Amino acid sequence: MAENNCKAEHIAVGSEILLGQIQNGHAQNISRILADKGFFLYYHSAVGDNLDRILQVYRTASSRSNVVIVTGGLGPTEDDLTKEALATFLGRRLVLSQESLERLEDFFTRRGRVMPPANRKQAMCIDGGELLDNPNGTAPGQYVVDKGVYYFLLPGPPLEMTPMLKNHVLPRLQQVFPPKHLESRILHLCGIGESDVDARIVDLTQKSNPTVAPLAGEGEMLLRLTATDTAERSARELIGETEDLLRQRFSRYIYGVDDETLPVVIGNKLRHLSASLSFAESCTGGLLSSMITQVSGSSDYFLGSVVSYSNDAKRTVLGVDADILEGYGAVSAETARLMAEGVRRLMGTTYGVSVTGIAGPSGGSAEKPVGLVYGAVSSAENTVPFKMMHSGSRRQIQIRAATRVLWELWRVLGR
Amino acid sequence: MAENNCKAEHIAVGSEILLGQIQNGHAQNISRILADKGFFLYYHSAVGDNLDRILQVYRTASSRSNVVIVTGGLGPTEDDLTKEALATFLGRRLVLSQESLERLEDFFTRRGRVMPPANRKQAMCIDGGELLDNPNGTAPGQYVVDKGVYYFLLPGPPLEMTPMLKNHVLPRLQQVFPPKHLESRILHLCGIGESDVDARIVDLTQKSNPTVAPLAGEGEMLLRLTATDTAERSARELIGETEDLLRQRFSRYIYGVDDETLPVVIGNKLRHLSASLSFAESCTGGLLSSMITQVSGSSDYFLGSVVSYSNDAKRTVLGVDADILEGYGAVSAETARLMAEGVRRLMGTTYGVSVTGIAGPSGGSAEKPVGLVYGAVSSAENTVPFKMMHSGSRRQIQIRAATRVLWELWRVLGR
Repeated sequence: MAENNCKAEHIAVGSEILLGQIQNGHAQNISRILADKGFFLYYHSAVGDNLDRILQVYRTASSRSNVVIVTGGLGPTEDDLTKEALATFLGRRLVLSQESLERLEDFFTRRGRVMPPANRKQAMCIDGGELLDNPNGTAPGQYVVDKGVYYFLLPGPPLEMTPMLKNHVLPRLQQVFPPKHLESRILHLCGIGESDVDARIVDLTQKSNPTVAPLAGEGEMLLRLTATDTAERSARELIGETEDLLRQRFSRYIYGVDDETLPVVIGNKLRHLSASLSFAESCTGGLLSSMITQVSGSSDYFLGSVVSYSNDAKRTVLGVDADILEGYGAVSAETARLMAEGVRRLMGTTYGVSVTGIAGPSGGSAEKPVGLVYGAVSSAENTVPFKMMHSGSRRQIQIRAATRVLWELWRVLGR
Repeated sequence: MAENNCKAEHIAVGSEILLGQIQNGHAQNISRILADKGFFLYYHSAVGDNLDRILQVYRTASSRSNVVIVTGGLGPTEDDLTKEALATFLGRRLVLSQESLERLEDFFTRRGRVMPPANRKQAMCIDGGELLDNPNGTAPGQYVVDKGVYYFLLPGPPLEMTPMLKNHVLPRLQQVFPPKHLESRILHLCGIGESDVDARIVDLTQKSNPTVAPLAGEGEMLLRLTATDTAERSARELIGETEDLLRQRFSRYIYGVDDETLPVVIGNKLRHLSASLSFAESCTGGLLSSMITQVSGSSDYFLGSVVSYSNDAKRTVLGVDADILEGYGAVSAETARLMAEGVRRLMGTTYGVSVTGIAGPSGGSAEKPVGLVYGAVSSAENTVPFKMMHSGSRRQIQIRAATRVLWELWRVLGR
């Protein structure tokens, strides 16, 4: 498994993890992000906000690993002990970083506040180490090398941690442990189930170079291809051959590569077509719009939506015919069609897309069970309704339906 | 934190966890199930399917804990090493359990199959220990006590592990370590920053019973109160006193207890008032509506929203005056006011709530920087606009703004 001499491990600090109040999601994220680049974790640990126990974990980690990545416990409170414990463990002093202090004070000033005295400790740096800039929060990271062990301390909030892992940790690891050439690619699929995908790639998942690993997402599937070779070009060719095979088998379902999520590929397509988009959402309650607007610059093509949760809103705002609502019901292909046409007209967009269904857990019937969802894509040419059946919790049904609707839109937009 | 002399830890065995291919969900589940009964885990670890590394983890665990719960690696393949490694570590033999072998053979017979030879190793028991019955799979668990340490080996599939934890592990722990009573409560706060909360609870976070632990969320804060006592009532009284103190200090900010998220408390309030709600969203792009509709039954009070991402949609759908949009800009208190009034009129709801701002990363200016957000709550009586300044990534600004808008609405609705 080893591509280099890096033996990494991850330690999560936080009593809330040990109490089971929050999931230690960092362990998987860090493993995945590092493994993609050929760096492997050999241990995960979690420990509470307790000095003695944190020291115990540092002792174990430093005896068996040469890269130790610690998350959490860098906040301003007395409970936050990660950095102080490492300084104690290494027998080094904490010294104030004037630069970091100014950055912190500036952070508060820009928000019209004075920095509370407690935050001063976030500007302390382990002697001989380096503070790592955190553009999304007050807690800088800490990097320090001691007796051949590379320590990285990163803040706990995922939206702060992940960019720092990519921008601070990975480049340093790549410098210290030059990897073999490793090429990795992720294919995104929608509209096909996990077991159907699995059954059609048995021959490929048994190979070791490149490896093909299926990962199930909510309403979509990822296939991760990884190849290693002494030469960069050969690794890329290995991946390319397998990707071609997969594209032959799943051409209809593969919508993107690597960072190309559905909102991204749809956005690119709409921008290319100089086309615009609006949604009429019922059971997804705004989630579809929220997914599209997570992409920066989405205002170029996304003009707006109507979340028509009530039948009144479907009628008065979107102009869905009362007879249709009455006759076919709010959850029907006919209503989906009129919702899509209504929002397209209202917002004056090239495409109008609708979704209406039963997210549950209540509201289902024998005829229209929980998980039944209709959607439609309307353009100047025509309106195409489609039907789906999703399972899972209320939230899962909402996510799966929204993902599937985006995929249907992607198909209409063409490759 | 100790309720008894039990010092437990959890070890997950499986290379797929270290590669980030699957989430180590057992750690959280076991922590939660045990904490509910007053048993606490002090460490979590994960290790791959490698004999030397599993032995290393057993060595560390047995030196610091008296209960070691291991999950995974009890299958029939060569990769499954958990039980063999423990036998090696304890220097004990593995002996065949005739009873367990018969049960295994019976398991296969009932499914019309002959037991493969590989499964025989699942009927091996560590000398002096006890196999634990697994009604949902082939792998029995293993229980063994050695030098004051209680070892429990459980199979990896969650549907096999969880019942065995409840039926085999918990009763044995309760017998060995009679628990004290434990009471725990979570207070939810919004509208106040982490360091401001921390600064005002220094006296309480230093106490050990009850403990008060602050946890930062996106745009909100949680305070976790935990008390223990020999009597259940006294534990509850201890919590109650501290909660009263916190309510005096943060009355304006505490909106909920335990599972009461903002969408839940707002929903309860609206249902109680027989009032209805609609949103006009710009920078949050549907997120606000999506949060409200995550709650089952939200159709009782939530009628719909307009995601007016473009200025055209603000004008034509919500009726925001073009002169206001031109003169004050889309991101202004004036536009927020007209959006809230517009959606309230359009959807015919008791309350109309708006949000408009700059989520970034582009689109900011010196006068109107990224993170500047306005909102408004409109009712029959009046329309109250408010201004916020958020930091972070595009997604963080969207989440923090949506959370803050919900809190402002909660305040208008009254306690």
